[in-house]
Amino acid sequence: MQKQAIIVGAGLVGSLWSVLLAKRGYEVNVYELRDDPRKAGFRGGRSINLAMSERGWKAIEKAGIRTKIEQVAIPMHGRKMHDTEGELSFQAYGEEGQAIYSVSRGGLNIELINIGDEYDNLTYHFGYKCKGIQLETNTAIFEDVDTNERIEVNAPLIFGTDGAFSAVRRSIMKQDRFNYSQQYLEYGYKELHIPPTSDGQHLIDKNALHIWPRGQFMMIALPNVDGSFTGTLFLPFEGQSPSFEELHSDEEVLSFFKKYFPDSIPLLPELLEDFRENPTSGLVTVRCNPWHYKKQVLIIGDASHAIVPFYGQGMNAGFEDCTILDDMMETYDEDWSKIIEAFGDSRPQDADAIADLALRNFVEMRDLVADPMFLLRKEIAAHLHEKYPSDFLPLYSQVTFSHIPYHQALEEGKAQDALFEQILAIEGIEENWSTNPLVDQIFQKWLKKKES
Amino acid sequence: MQKQAIIVGAGLVGSLWSVLLAKRGYEVNVYELRDDPRKAGFRGGRSINLAMSERGWKAIEKAGIRTKIEQVAIPMHGRKMHDTEGELSFQAYGEEGQAIYSVSRGGLNIELINIGDEYDNLTYHFGYKCKGIQLETNTAIFEDVDTNERIEVNAPLIFGTDGAFSAVRRSIMKQDRFNYSQQYLEYGYKELHIPPTSDGQHLIDKNALHIWPRGQFMMIALPNVDGSFTGTLFLPFEGQSPSFEELHSDEEVLSFFKKYFPDSIPLLPELLEDFRENPTSGLVTVRCNPWHYKKQVLIIGDASHAIVPFYGQGMNAGFEDCTILDDMMETYDEDWSKIIEAFGDSRPQDADAIADLALRNFVEMRDLVADPMFLLRKEIAAHLHEKYPSDFLPLYSQVTFSHIPYHQALEEGKAQDALFEQILAIEGIEENWSTNPLVDQIFQKWLKKKES
Repeated sequence: MQKQAIIVGAGLVGSLWSVLLAKRGYEVNVYELRDDPRKAGFRGGRSINLAMSERGWKAIEKAGIRTKIEQVAIPMHGRKMHDTEGELSFQAYGEEGQAIYSVSRGGLNIELINIGDEYDNLTYHFGYKCKGIQLETNTAIFEDVDTNERIEVNAPLIFGTDGAFSAVRRSIMKQDRFNYSQQYLEYGYKELHIPPTSDGQHLIDKNALHIWPRGQFMMIALPNVDGSFTGTLFLPFEGQSPSFEELHSDEEVLSFFKKYFPDSIPLLPELLEDFRENPTSGLVTVRCNPWHYKKQVLIIGDASHAIVPFYGQGMNAGFEDCTILDDMMETYDEDWSKIIEAFGDSRPQDADAIADLALRNFVEMRDLVADPMFLLRKEIAAHLHEKYPSDFLPLYSQVTFSHIPYHQALEEGKAQDALFEQILAIEGIEENWSTNPLVDQIFQKWLKKKES
Repeated sequence: MQKQAIIVGAGLVGSLWSVLLAKRGYEVNVYELRDDPRKAGFRGGRSINLAMSERGWKAIEKAGIRTKIEQVAIPMHGRKMHDTEGELSFQAYGEEGQAIYSVSRGGLNIELINIGDEYDNLTYHFGYKCKGIQLETNTAIFEDVDTNERIEVNAPLIFGTDGAFSAVRRSIMKQDRFNYSQQYLEYGYKELHIPPTSDGQHLIDKNALHIWPRGQFMMIALPNVDGSFTGTLFLPFEGQSPSFEELHSDEEVLSFFKKYFPDSIPLLPELLEDFRENPTSGLVTVRCNPWHYKKQVLIIGDASHAIVPFYGQGMNAGFEDCTILDDMMETYDEDWSKIIEAFGDSRPQDADAIADLALRNFVEMRDLVADPMFLLRKEIAAHLHEKYPSDFLPLYSQVTFSHIPYHQALEEGKAQDALFEQILAIEGIEENWSTNPLVDQIFQKWLKKKES
């Protein structure tokens, strides 16, 4: 087979994957609907940031730009919760020194494209809209968005990295027996800008992910390198109170923020303008199977598994697709029929698991982080991990700070739920958890059962 | 609003719904991809039959053709199970006199179109392929399949009754926040013809639905009026044994039938030819929400809720959509904004429920009907119903012989599962169920709890 590939979509996963393929000597042609972000400016600009964690870093390292990205990534060591009185509390994500990193989507995308440009065997074609794939002939059809000219290109391998509304997936979907699901949350989100101080500093602690948990809804904020934060309000679209449909006039918006997020008002000088002008967007989970057509056309990243953002794993999961495929190129000696079969057999269950985990984490972020019993559980979990580092790793750490397959992490998480149901039922546990021998006894019994 | 409607698709649900609308004085234009079945012959011909039950009859009655259809419907009073020795057993579907009815899809469709033709305000347009709906203008776009001419028609109401692969649904799906899922079983099906005797009689009992239950797979047969039966083999596509991928040569097919369905071989003189020539088809469940666009474009029947055939409820559920809408036209005095809102709020949960029930029933048909404990449960259920007719109606009867909303039936079914878990755990229940007072005690306790 000739070492040639077409990649549809030069977003984060597409631009990373094209670099990894180019590194291995493939002739790669990447087609992207948007203009070159280095010339046009990244659409979405300042307002989109991401939480990079261990799985993402591994792929970034493979691409050779870890050091570069680290310089513009802001470590967030934990969650900082804001209550309605403006009181703050903090909950670490992992051990001392562990963090997730706020990075700019646009900045990261541009770095990946820059790296790709260094390869003579990698060519970007910007301004081409994918009109679908002729599956029988491995031909991708594009339309030049300026001239409307239609072009057809083919290659032995086509990768769809064209996101949650993938045109490549739409072509595969026309085949018989394609399982597909797209499910929207009843919630929308709206981005709100927290500017820097006049001397470019962050107004609130920059080394944390800020959460205003309010039970059925929440606001969060992630730091940007320019001293600003991107705030995001997650709220039901309608049918509940409060909801976006209730917030129309400036007065309604302001009184909502005064009631629920009073300490955020000084941080949001452009609140009313942002609220009026920024869109209210939806949150979708996409699952499908199979991810490929005859082991020649493969969809990865959001194209095959879009998830909600609440575990900070969307990009990380897409990047991990690339890592796994890159590793499989060695394992299977670049036999793509074997690679795509193995990947297609194993990876969807991990994508399913992180989709479920991300949905679960919404409840955790908007509600449970304000629940004393939940915080107690986190404390005891950290304690057990410290005492039995090789026997107990909290679920959040498995997802965020390890490369344990997501579906294993999800299973382990369910087992941990059963463990803590017992531990938190101990009489007086709030006071005596660090000394009560029952905690250890229950843990040992649980461990024994799990290992048997 | 002008009383005008476009209906996309003149299959069973579309042709029934067009009659009900025409009866209420609407100017109805129905567009159908296929040729007029009265001229062209019904595609699929003899080989497709359906099980009409109570919900279907009610709609047929509204259309005014109940008597006509009853004359060509064959009552099936229960399941007749064939074991590998050719031994038969029988299990009634309901009470004495109750039955489901085998009807021909083509015959029923033609009768509905004939009735429609009697209305001056109803026009059929055959040979028009729907290319989608311009939602903002309520315009349906069709292509004349002979001339390729494109036409656009609009009306204040558009109904999509164009089946599991609905073009109308595809247009609605492009809107934001549309939840959608299509899931295929790992099983395929293949139709096999059981001819009549030389004097036009049925070779086996015509008043039963025949099942050859074999655990992981099964064959069934439904009677046709010409003395033949339509047999259907349901088998995994691949990855298990036996499966369709293992059955290629005539020898493989024959030895499979000899091993698992020996008593069917004399019934299937065209077995090898049928097996080679008939397609192996997939079985899909489609769920989506919302079912409408701005209360003006509505999808019903398989277009919004395609289900697997194992409860015999696909057509019945689609017909019940029509009954409910027709009733709502009275309730809401033909205010379509209110009708479609009320229908869209309530009906999807019933469609979801029957989709789940149909998937569950596959296990029942292929496996449980051969299980003595399952048959015992059916017997005790019939006994309880006889003793407490107003307090206990078996799940199957709720679905098949009542108009209880499907989602209520599903809930009731789960409650009945809990009841029988207790009853079947009684010591010696196989022998003493008709006399043991514990049965009554458990039932009364269950009933009390359910009613509280």
